[in-house]
Amino acid sequence: MPDTDREKNHKQRMQRKKEVIDTRIAKADKNRGVLLIHTGNGKGKSSSGFGMVARALGHNMRVGIVQFIKGSDSTGEERFFKQFEQVSYHVMGEGFTWETQDMQRDKEVANIAWKQAVKLLSDNTFNLVLLDELNIALKSKLLDIETVIHDLQQRPEMQHVIVTGRGAIPELINIADTVTEMKLIKHAYTSGVRAQKGIEY
Amino acid sequence: MPDTDREKNHKQRMQRKKEVIDTRIAKADKNRGVLLIHTGNGKGKSSSGFGMVARALGHNMRVGIVQFIKGSDSTGEERFFKQFEQVSYHVMGEGFTWETQDMQRDKEVANIAWKQAVKLLSDNTFNLVLLDELNIALKSKLLDIETVIHDLQQRPEMQHVIVTGRGAIPELINIADTVTEMKLIKHAYTSGVRAQKGIEY
Repeated sequence: MPDTDREKNHKQRMQRKKEVIDTRIAKADKNRGVLLIHTGNGKGKSSSGFGMVARALGHNMRVGIVQFIKGSDSTGEERFFKQFEQVSYHVMGEGFTWETQDMQRDKEVANIAWKQAVKLLSDNTFNLVLLDELNIALKSKLLDIETVIHDLQQRPEMQHVIVTGRGAIPELINIADTVTEMKLIKHAYTSGVRAQKGIEY
Repeated sequence: MPDTDREKNHKQRMQRKKEVIDTRIAKADKNRGVLLIHTGNGKGKSSSGFGMVARALGHNMRVGIVQFIKGSDSTGEERFFKQFEQVSYHVMGEGFTWETQDMQRDKEVANIAWKQAVKLLSDNTFNLVLLDELNIALKSKLLDIETVIHDLQQRPEMQHVIVTGRGAIPELINIADTVTEMKLIKHAYTSGVRAQKGIEY
């Protein structure tokens, strides 16, 4: 195919693509807070949530963050986001459930974290709430799912919520607006590369 | 199953999980810069990159960002990250390819953007380089893939690179360390909700 034909084809394809996208966008006309879920076994679930925190701060929005489960490393994002007064940052978890191996204790910790989450979810001055690793707490049955769904649905109309963590349960996916599965295609540790600062933590 | 049995089972499962994970981590002992790719049709490819930028800044790292393709909205992340002196932020694209519909012009713009990327990729004071939407430029053949791979592989040993955008080409996946596919499970616009500030842009 000569170059000019290729360019003409390209132009036509791009025009059709533009029409499809423009039509879809024109049809979406409601404004309200959305519930996003990032799940799956791949990278980027939490970091995408933190990227949206940065984006929201760029729009001068107020952001609440609750980390339900946290490794023993002090993380870069905690250090970074805690410096902003528009951010209310709460690290509640004491480690992964496979580190503590004590379900009763994990339940107590998760419920204290949920109480903190509810404070943010009932305060309409917060435009965005990130519930980091909440999926793991739900999947491990550390929290009552009906209470969680009720509290999420009672939140202010314009408040956005992002829930991260692998193993999102169907009940939560059901009430979510946007759900993304992060799928692992390839991971550096399989070629022997250690977790890298600024990338993994 | 009585509660105590369930808890014992849980404890055993978590112990096995901990062993598997600890063994894998112990085997990964190399330190070097990694090349990450975020691709797929789901949300979170760019925002996850920006979350890692935040994380890296929390570790006082220097970060370079090149946006290869950019919509007409001024984005929250641009406004946010441009305020940090450790960040070198370059918006090079002039819109999506289906907006411009002119391949020659898109090629010129992409190649100017790549020149900027090479400046960052040859400067070892940058610990992390985010090449946002580079995948789209490669998929649309706006850049020479062999040049791109060569320049990526010539970068400083400890420099991390994140490449985002749907449709990552096999040649790039091949040389990457960690690849994640963001899969769309559900999207708010299908239920008529507009793109929300702080979430979509």
